[in-house]
Amino acid sequence: MNTFGNIFKVSIFGESHGQGLGVVVDSCPSGIELCEDDFLEDLQRRKSGAKGTTPRQEDDLPEILSGVFCGKTTGAPIAILFRNNNTKSKDYSQLFDHPRPGHADFVARVKYGGFNDYTGGGHFSGRLTLGLVAAGVIAKKILNPVKIEAKILEIGGTTDLNKAIELAQQTKDSIGGILECKASGLPIGLGEPFFLSVESAISSIVFSIPAVKGIEFGAGFNVAKMTGSFNNDCIIDSKGTTETNNAGGINGGISNGNDIVFKIAVKPTPSVSLPQETYNIKDKRVEELIITGRHDLCIALRVPPVLEAATAIALADLSLIAQSVKRVF
Amino acid sequence: MNTFGNIFKVSIFGESHGQGLGVVVDSCPSGIELCEDDFLEDLQRRKSGAKGTTPRQEDDLPEILSGVFCGKTTGAPIAILFRNNNTKSKDYSQLFDHPRPGHADFVARVKYGGFNDYTGGGHFSGRLTLGLVAAGVIAKKILNPVKIEAKILEIGGTTDLNKAIELAQQTKDSIGGILECKASGLPIGLGEPFFLSVESAISSIVFSIPAVKGIEFGAGFNVAKMTGSFNNDCIIDSKGTTETNNAGGINGGISNGNDIVFKIAVKPTPSVSLPQETYNIKDKRVEELIITGRHDLCIALRVPPVLEAATAIALADLSLIAQSVKRVF
Amino acid sequence: MNTFGNIFKVSIFGESHGQGLGVVVDSCPSGIELCEDDFLEDLQRRKSGAKGTTPRQEDDLPEILSGVFCGKTTGAPIAILFRNNNTKSKDYSQLFDHPRPGHADFVARVKYGGFNDYTGGGHFSGRLTLGLVAAGVIAKKILNPVKIEAKILEIGGTTDLNKAIELAQQTKDSIGGILECKASGLPIGLGEPFFLSVESAISSIVFSIPAVKGIEFGAGFNVAKMTGSFNNDCIIDSKGTTETNNAGGINGGISNGNDIVFKIAVKPTPSVSLPQETYNIKDKRVEELIITGRHDLCIALRVPPVLEAATAIALADLSLIAQSVKRVF
Amino acid sequence: MNTFGNIFKVSIFGESHGQGLGVVVDSCPSGIELCEDDFLEDLQRRKSGAKGTTPRQEDDLPEILSGVFCGKTTGAPIAILFRNNNTKSKDYSQLFDHPRPGHADFVARVKYGGFNDYTGGGHFSGRLTLGLVAAGVIAKKILNPVKIEAKILEIGGTTDLNKAIELAQQTKDSIGGILECKASGLPIGLGEPFFLSVESAISSIVFSIPAVKGIEFGAGFNVAKMTGSFNNDCIIDSKGTTETNNAGGINGGISNGNDIVFKIAVKPTPSVSLPQETYNIKDKRVEELIITGRHDLCIALRVPPVLEAATAIALADLSLIAQSVKRVF
Repeated sequence: MNTFGNIFKVSIFGESHGQGLGVVVDSCPSGIELCEDDFLEDLQRRKSGAKGTTPRQEDDLPEILSGVFCGKTTGAPIAILFRNNNTKSKDYSQLFDHPRPGHADFVARVKYGGFNDYTGGGHFSGRLTLGLVAAGVIAKKILNPVKIEAKILEIGGTTDLNKAIELAQQTKDSIGGILECKASGLPIGLGEPFFLSVESAISSIVFSIPAVKGIEFGAGFNVAKMTGSFNNDCIIDSKGTTETNNAGGINGGISNGNDIVFKIAVKPTPSVSLPQETYNIKDKRVEELIITGRHDLCIALRVPPVLEAATAIALADLSLIAQSVKRVF
Repeated sequence: MNTFGNIFKVSIFGESHGQGLGVVVDSCPSGIELCEDDFLEDLQRRKSGAKGTTPRQEDDLPEILSGVFCGKTTGAPIAILFRNNNTKSKDYSQLFDHPRPGHADFVARVKYGGFNDYTGGGHFSGRLTLGLVAAGVIAKKILNPVKIEAKILEIGGTTDLNKAIELAQQTKDSIGGILECKASGLPIGLGEPFFLSVESAISSIVFSIPAVKGIEFGAGFNVAKMTGSFNNDCIIDSKGTTETNNAGGINGGISNGNDIVFKIAVKPTPSVSLPQETYNIKDKRVEELIITGRHDLCIALRVPPVLEAATAIALADLSLIAQSVKRVF
Repeated sequence: MNTFGNIFKVSIFGESHGQGLGVVVDSCPSGIELCEDDFLEDLQRRKSGAKGTTPRQEDDLPEILSGVFCGKTTGAPIAILFRNNNTKSKDYSQLFDHPRPGHADFVARVKYGGFNDYTGGGHFSGRLTLGLVAAGVIAKKILNPVKIEAKILEIGGTTDLNKAIELAQQTKDSIGGILECKASGLPIGLGEPFFLSVESAISSIVFSIPAVKGIEFGAGFNVAKMTGSFNNDCIIDSKGTTETNNAGGINGGISNGNDIVFKIAVKPTPSVSLPQETYNIKDKRVEELIITGRHDLCIALRVPPVLEAATAIALADLSLIAQSVKRVF
Repeated sequence: MNTFGNIFKVSIFGESHGQGLGVVVDSCPSGIELCEDDFLEDLQRRKSGAKGTTPRQEDDLPEILSGVFCGKTTGAPIAILFRNNNTKSKDYSQLFDHPRPGHADFVARVKYGGFNDYTGGGHFSGRLTLGLVAAGVIAKKILNPVKIEAKILEIGGTTDLNKAIELAQQTKDSIGGILECKASGLPIGLGEPFFLSVESAISSIVFSIPAVKGIEFGAGFNVAKMTGSFNNDCIIDSKGTTETNNAGGINGGISNGNDIVFKIAVKPTPSVSLPQETYNIKDKRVEELIITGRHDLCIALRVPPVLEAATAIALADLSLIAQSVKRVF
């Protein structure tokens, strides 16, 4: 089930160490300016290289295979391909019988009867989010002038990000983080009862991003401690502006015109340089595993552009759906 | 978009104060014993009447309209109808121009051009979860012997539930809560990359339940503070049993055979007996609103059977999908 | 898979001899006038009673369960229920082991492991088209002022319909027919490449109508004998009007603004009063079967309103899809 | 809507004269042997070059981008890319204002606001069927040992195919044809009521093949002239074998274990060398158009492998669906 969306459909394919990976975006309206350069900023933001990220360097250059003609979208599916080139499959050869803790290695092996591509995580690799970022660039254009911004609130339990990374480097361990995403400028009325609430659509795609383990909208888990009279956001004008925004811009699953705001929790990269224990499937015993491949110390650092993209994709789909049933009354 | 699921499809219809409400369940395997009595236990658990819940009393008796023959499912769609009888529409007449804070009143009015049924929340009412509970009973039968249990961890910020309710009664306010849901006995391999992770499927349907504002799997938001070596769950046997369960039974979006565990945050009922302020759409000014209808002090108290049902529906759909592509190797 | 449509979703449920049957229509725009009387004309046209149709008489009175408030659609799902009352299940008791030739009895028994409701054809009964007709009435309102008309071209191989029926009555046999359906006033641009051509959408739903065995658009099978220069429809004005309409109003799968025209073949009712041979599943031998239930001599006579409804549903869905991706350039 | 299927999902992208075109196949079971050579036979059969087909020569070499590892399917999406190389876009420059009769030129221009890629038909080109053929090769492997065979029954109104082509060459015109497709060895029980009958699934995808204008199953349009007692296929053994096969292997929309047989009508290639009239959009008048590009005299000649592929895709999807809800009783 590698397709997301009801109208604005985004299909992902590829593996970490195969020929490449990519995305097909269907039902994008025609006439939108689009070229390969448009993708570079968000791809660059997603890239590794900064402190705390993997030393694996990929060009990550997108090739638009279809759906664009004379610099504009045609209405036909937009296929975008990223070639892999910097792959080191030998790093992974021992992993077939030694599933890495916290990764999909073991479940993928069982689910696919051992036929899954396990090199570099295969189809479960975080590299697949390249396709998501590319589709997000298109989604943002559809949503224009809506503004979507994700930022890191904390990593390793602190807002001092530098310090947290240094500590992780010293301890050869990895750390998680919390991000916030905000979408401003949306109209009232996105989201559909009963099963396609804004929260449903966003959480559904956000939990496709590897390593995300929690999501909360507006006041989130804090609502459990609030009283109704405190939590309720008072409407103060005819546009639906609310005094507070505990609802995170969503009532009854429908956007209320205020900022859509939510937070997510990203777990620490499961690959760490410290020795770990795992089950040796062949020899049938628990034994030590040392992961030697390249990996991020804090995957959360690379999530912001992916989170924005995922949010944009969900909102673009909801926008097209809302438009489809609109009548002039 | 009132249908959930890819194969096991659940379609919801109805309003709080209309003729009734119900659900159509498609692609249920044939030959499963099913009668109206099977629904009563979970419907009873969902019912109001306990301390802290609304005094509105409905029979909530399900009528199976189709899909069952000689006491067993036939493979055809199962339609289940609940008639409304205890409706008091006069309670709601003032609300057309006075959208209740925290409810869908305002967004529904804008989204549907004023044609939405606003009495009792209409299609946005929590009463719609009756259909979810009914579909969940069927889903549980498909998943049998998997065991799904939801419980309340805290309300109003405390584990002393009685005390919290009494306080809310005294202050004429409402309170939220946190619930935990656990599914035991699932096979390895449910969930599909890239967009139908177990977390995606469950969160998507769980955020359809009115008042849910957050969800976290396993260690959830706490993962943000953990190191990778601590958070990783060590696999200790050939069945994939892990020593800890910080992952909440899910790796790479796929069930790993351990308990699936997640928590949700439920906001306080937006309807409170205290006076509130809202925008008078007709007179174009902020003014006081007093809500006189019947409502729950703590909607979280009624969520456990709904949460179980939602979880069962998502897992039943994932089970049928997993079965569809299975081969004997 | 009892749901049709991508946005305008129509879900069917029910059986011939059960509690009843019905339909849930999702994503109908709000603000459309709708009441139970609106369904009566098309339901009446579908009804039996005329010469050549079954003597089974049902009220076929629709009950709108949801989605309508103050006489207008609300945007929420519209559920419509038809109760069965004139059922004679004893007529069918012998059929469990004697699958009727030309019916779904045998395949349903195998597919559902013997748990299918076989009385009156169960979920495979032509009675299910009641739900289709009801949904079609709503679809027609969405498409308004598009005009959709189906008519019978011939039955039993002749355009003299009276004569054909009389002959069938005399021979105690049943006869088939050919119908034409025309939709006028559609805009250019309905239908989506690659898999949702107008022909794909219409044929897909039309082949859901029991007894349909062929469909052809425009010149249809005759195109196989034509040359390109003869078959091509010359465009003669800026609105895309064509001189001829061999394409049946569709180019490249997209509506071209001319009438959409297609023909279907309806097989003779498989139930006939003549003795037939079938396989006795229990006794494992071929033996004579006499069908004593009530049935139509020529089911084609009752298909026109069903065919219109199916066409309207497919076109309404295509219209909403086309609207969803439309931009002002 | 460039995706077909409910579980076995096939997504098409690309244009005739762009970078290339391809297909993404989702939910293919893992462990199936697959390499690029496997596609060559069917691609070769689809290729032009024979008498009556276009002189445009393309390598049509597939590149498997993902979903295959160590020579076997992994369970992840299989993306297949075909590069275009032999494109002559200059042939098409005049067509922007001169929509070719019988093509999608005019409707595409209106639908996409003039932003569609019109060179070589763009996304509407018959070249897109390359992706269908590739997906069909995978589908056939899933269906193995089911045998699917399409053949040409007649072209230009005659079974003497050579003579028909020669006549068309002489007259500089194009001709249509009729094909038959047969699937043997299918189990009983494929197809789902109410909207996913075998006829619905097959016709839906078959009408995605450019130039198809009619389809009929079994006795097809001839059923309209038959009596029920003649048309009914008598079941003669416990496997459901029928004496005749007027139903084309399908009862009530469900496969009955006999051969699935259907015929389609393919229109003559709309591009002909003869001068034609069309509307000049810019100058607003009807004028003569001479099409100088390369094209097939009889597109029907190239349809058999495409028709087999489409049929295989539809049946593979139905097979996975049937498997998903199967229980051991």
